[in-house]
Amino acid sequence: MRSTHLLRGGVLAGLVALLFATPLRADEGMWTYDNPPLAELKTRYGFEPSREWLDHLRLSSVRFMSGGSGSFVSKDGLVMTNHHVGSESIAKLSSAERDLLKNGFSAASRDAELRCPDLELNVLTSMEDVTGRITDAAAAAKDAAEANTLRKKAVAAIEKEESERTGQRCDVVTLYRGGEYWVYRYDRFTDIRLVFCPDKQAAFFGGDPDNFTFPRYDLDVAFFRVYVDDKPYQPKHWLEWNAKGCADGDLVFVSGHPGSTSRLLTATQMEFQRAVAQPRSLKFMSELIAALHEFGRKDEESRRRAEDDLFGLENSFKARSGQLKGLNDPELMGRKRAEEAELHQLLRANPAGLAEYDAAVKAIDGAYAKLAGFTARQYWSRLNGDAVSHALTLVRAATELAKPNGERLPGFTDAALPALKLRTFSTAPVYLDLDELLLGVTLTAAARELGPEDPFVKAALQGKSAPDAAKAAMAGTKLADPAVRKQLFEGGPAALDASNDPLIALAKRVDPILRELQKKFEDEVASVEAANGEAIARGRFRAFGKSKAPDATFTLRLSHGVVKGYEAGGTLVPWATTFWGLYERHAAFGGRYPFDLMPRWLERRESLDLSTPFNFVSTNDIIGGNSGSPVVGRDGRIVGIIFDGNIESLPAAYIYDERQSRSVSVHSAGILMALDRVYDARELVAELLGSAKIGSAGS
Amino acid sequence: MRSTHLLRGGVLAGLVALLFATPLRADEGMWTYDNPPLAELKTRYGFEPSREWLDHLRLSSVRFMSGGSGSFVSKDGLVMTNHHVGSESIAKLSSAERDLLKNGFSAASRDAELRCPDLELNVLTSMEDVTGRITDAAAAAKDAAEANTLRKKAVAAIEKEESERTGQRCDVVTLYRGGEYWVYRYDRFTDIRLVFCPDKQAAFFGGDPDNFTFPRYDLDVAFFRVYVDDKPYQPKHWLEWNAKGCADGDLVFVSGHPGSTSRLLTATQMEFQRAVAQPRSLKFMSELIAALHEFGRKDEESRRRAEDDLFGLENSFKARSGQLKGLNDPELMGRKRAEEAELHQLLRANPAGLAEYDAAVKAIDGAYAKLAGFTARQYWSRLNGDAVSHALTLVRAATELAKPNGERLPGFTDAALPALKLRTFSTAPVYLDLDELLLGVTLTAAARELGPEDPFVKAALQGKSAPDAAKAAMAGTKLADPAVRKQLFEGGPAALDASNDPLIALAKRVDPILRELQKKFEDEVASVEAANGEAIARGRFRAFGKSKAPDATFTLRLSHGVVKGYEAGGTLVPWATTFWGLYERHAAFGGRYPFDLMPRWLERRESLDLSTPFNFVSTNDIIGGNSGSPVVGRDGRIVGIIFDGNIESLPAAYIYDERQSRSVSVHSAGILMALDRVYDARELVAELLGSAKIGSAGS
Repeated sequence: MRSTHLLRGGVLAGLVALLFATPLRADEGMWTYDNPPLAELKTRYGFEPSREWLDHLRLSSVRFMSGGSGSFVSKDGLVMTNHHVGSESIAKLSSAERDLLKNGFSAASRDAELRCPDLELNVLTSMEDVTGRITDAAAAAKDAAEANTLRKKAVAAIEKEESERTGQRCDVVTLYRGGEYWVYRYDRFTDIRLVFCPDKQAAFFGGDPDNFTFPRYDLDVAFFRVYVDDKPYQPKHWLEWNAKGCADGDLVFVSGHPGSTSRLLTATQMEFQRAVAQPRSLKFMSELIAALHEFGRKDEESRRRAEDDLFGLENSFKARSGQLKGLNDPELMGRKRAEEAELHQLLRANPAGLAEYDAAVKAIDGAYAKLAGFTARQYWSRLNGDAVSHALTLVRAATELAKPNGERLPGFTDAALPALKLRTFSTAPVYLDLDELLLGVTLTAAARELGPEDPFVKAALQGKSAPDAAKAAMAGTKLADPAVRKQLFEGGPAALDASNDPLIALAKRVDPILRELQKKFEDEVASVEAANGEAIARGRFRAFGKSKAPDATFTLRLSHGVVKGYEAGGTLVPWATTFWGLYERHAAFGGRYPFDLMPRWLERRESLDLSTPFNFVSTNDIIGGNSGSPVVGRDGRIVGIIFDGNIESLPAAYIYDERQSRSVSVHSAGILMALDRVYDARELVAELLGSAKIGSAGS
Repeated sequence: MRSTHLLRGGVLAGLVALLFATPLRADEGMWTYDNPPLAELKTRYGFEPSREWLDHLRLSSVRFMSGGSGSFVSKDGLVMTNHHVGSESIAKLSSAERDLLKNGFSAASRDAELRCPDLELNVLTSMEDVTGRITDAAAAAKDAAEANTLRKKAVAAIEKEESERTGQRCDVVTLYRGGEYWVYRYDRFTDIRLVFCPDKQAAFFGGDPDNFTFPRYDLDVAFFRVYVDDKPYQPKHWLEWNAKGCADGDLVFVSGHPGSTSRLLTATQMEFQRAVAQPRSLKFMSELIAALHEFGRKDEESRRRAEDDLFGLENSFKARSGQLKGLNDPELMGRKRAEEAELHQLLRANPAGLAEYDAAVKAIDGAYAKLAGFTARQYWSRLNGDAVSHALTLVRAATELAKPNGERLPGFTDAALPALKLRTFSTAPVYLDLDELLLGVTLTAAARELGPEDPFVKAALQGKSAPDAAKAAMAGTKLADPAVRKQLFEGGPAALDASNDPLIALAKRVDPILRELQKKFEDEVASVEAANGEAIARGRFRAFGKSKAPDATFTLRLSHGVVKGYEAGGTLVPWATTFWGLYERHAAFGGRYPFDLMPRWLERRESLDLSTPFNFVSTNDIIGGNSGSPVVGRDGRIVGIIFDGNIESLPAAYIYDERQSRSVSVHSAGILMALDRVYDARELVAELLGSAKIGSAGS
């Protein structure tokens, strides 16, 4: 499971914008650290975490800006995450000669640790409620579109002011779909080095078939180290290792960065997801997946180049299929309706509040009626591929950076500049053959869906077939070279005007059309969702107070749950798997891909205690983006690491159901045994256990 | 999985009686041996079985009248079946001191083989179409009820005549729900001795949770030997053992006795199952299951006594739950409607045929409208328990045996007498405490559902509470003693009149009421189903010829299929499991019941080749009653033994769907390894492999 929050062309995230009545169910909730469910924890589990306990866990939690979570696990800045969170960086450190995804990596010494070209990690150091400043700024607007502009201006101003004041990464975060705005301040790290990763076959054993399922047998871990001034960073907070790990029935906590949920949508927004957005995404992804599979069949190097994109797409395809199944499930959707009815019932005591709520829901209905008229243009007008993404960024940066900070597109504000530069100047390899394929498939789809007379299609194809247009756009481009990108970026509009790079030319042709579509969407839909999202949030606060967690926004959240099996497929699913099962699944499929194992796993079999827990499930409420989150017990020590949700958890994007929905983790005892006996990673094991001896004040 | 065909109070089987359009799908079909799907086998698999091949397989197949299937596997009359098919006999051979279910059994020599008290095995030696005789006999009737009487009279006459002529068991079998009538002639064996069974934990590893699921890890086999004149029987045909067994993709055949399917029901009959019959059964079974669990908690001996009934009930409950799920599945039921439409389309060429078909469907609708008025009385007016079943049999025998053969209740005709006596005079233990419990629960349900003024309730309770009435009925009964039953049976009406046994008194009071209800059902429903079933069958033959197999009737059938995994739970399920997985599931559940293993399995682990196939799945179309059926390859040698269907196969009672529906077998290589290395059953292994050397002409 990987966060779908940061996928290319993440237009859908913008469509997902409002509130819905969801009675709290059992262990539901991805809670912000300012509002943990203390009463619930005390009543249900007799557990009362101290402020120190919460601060320690928060400050040990790490966000991977590539789309995942992690945690500090030693005093020397060692960070644990999933292999599949680190895999984008691992792929960028690989080449035809050194395939780290295939073979794994273990640094023989600190000198041998490999620096990632463009990985950014964040640690949330403080949070402050700025709701008043944002709503005050928008209060004077004459309509939703103007309010939207004023709100964005206020956000950009706060982010700039805060980042200049603190020297930190400062993001204004929208919570409760407009109910609250907070500034989140992060320590930002960009010198991140790979310490250890297993071979992908062990990390992702069972491949796409087993992805999002349980029972599982995956060593989905990777270790990086944060460097500052070329020295290992010494964090004040890190998590101790529990070598025995958790057991059936234990209360456990997950601290991480869930990407996006859509539990608070109105009925109209939900129906748009069900009938339009999700089926359309699935269709497009299946085309990309088929093309990448064909590309990868050419030769081993093509397979390697396509591998990481393919994983991401297959992962998203499976996730969205499960989400769509939830949207089509009459029982789940019946519960949604019941929850809406409960909200209405609670609001009846306050007629003005109820009227405001109903008017807001109706306003969003109106926006979606307009959206129906241009959603196809908005979705299919898109480019795809690393090089063309760089081109579009360069073209836009030339325009945007000349504007006042408050009027720029998101991602081009002063506060966002460091991350933008990190990505744009990255030395990560760009594969033009792969890019040409992705661009060709994307333009083919656009031409088919929108027709030859569509403005985007005309601008992108210029009368050519889609594959020819893609070929022409890539022919002779120099954008694979980071030095060229840096020169174009720093040269500003003049350098761009002088460029005859065909990808720059393509980006210039389509940029005005994409901007126009984006503006139309913002004015007619997003701004209406934002303004009325605030009204709906007021209604929810009136009815429920803050007893319900906000939707996920790729910001730090705390989730509690219990280690617990479940019923599925007509039988019981145990709380954990063991290493016996790894060899069962390997043998049952005759060792065929994706159930093959590297020779070391067969050679070392005799040395393993096969009954050691390997993966386990718990009721924690998580979603894509939580991958790599530490799982800790009551004492704050690490008992595992989140890496997936089961197939029954996928509808949780829209509604959580504790009966079968489970998060899936690698068990801390299984990790230790594999590191020690399969990979001979003795230094790493000593560092993990060493931290248990030295400890940290907070736990 | 166990056949639900022969469960106590099997009234439902009588309600299940007509035809429906089912286009043949892939490996669908439980074929009679007179009409194997030769064209299909040739086209799809390039396989052309000879008449000898078919005869050899048929004559090696064995029916367990206790509700299952088996096969001859040595020249010395060794019969293989499932542990769960043999378990009723194994329970009857057990006592508090000698718990063979718990500990297993292995005869040290032939002298030590244990004779079962009342087990009857059948081998189908010949079949003959007698449709003309039955339909001619009924042709002169003035209405459906009279036709029904005449039909039954003709059946009894043929069975008597044939059994006297041949000395065999001869049954008239209704196929295609009235489309054909055949006489099936069986060699009948009643001296059956237990040779080997594993402990129940190995045979039924995973218990009720894993029942009807896959992946599985069950050694569900038992071996019996047929004796004739106190010597091992020497069958002309038996199946050779394939020690390597089957592999993924192999074509395999199953020859066995599927109990009952309901694929050819009309829409009205199907809806009755969905809305009335299945939910009612589930409710009653859940009450019995709860009571048996409570009974078993008293002490170890109570647990042992309840065990076999509990297995049967939990098995049926799970099966029926899955069937009901199928009936409530809009996609499956949509396919049913499409099939009905296809039948209509095909019949349109023959207006008279179409009119006859439609009239028959309408006639059955009318019968079910009447049934609605008394179905509750018919279902809940029932007794339960071994002793009271004996009492009812004795009371009825006294009346029935005085009548002409053709007018008796089914089960009391001359042809049925040997089996009736075997059951009634059986030395199997009768547990009066268990019987009292079952009777009490059953009468409690009747009183609740029918009210105090209902004739059955009044006759059974006589003003007492249900538990008191059950207690009074059991107090002082002598019917647990087979000698007493024999004396009452042979003494006829006079002996019964003289008896003051309270169970006999209860049976006498309720018998007239049960008879009246049965007659009402026969006159108003069953006879209409039978007459119109013939008409519907004519319609089907006109549309499809004999290209579709008849519904299952606990008679011998041949099914073909492919060894093949499937997709479920979001991932791939392999074609086979191995012994690795047994230890995985044991370890993952911490060795807790029902995932515990006897010490021998842990002690012998090192001696096993854990990658040996253990259980496997194939697309063969089977159902309860097929349990114990041999699975053979193209060469006719044994590659496994059927013991279950997966959870996705349960709706196949109503509609077959090859995508996920699979039969589950124990693999021949896994059986050999376990017998040899876990149970030290060297003699048995030698006998199985010895047959491979000596062989039989047919294969």
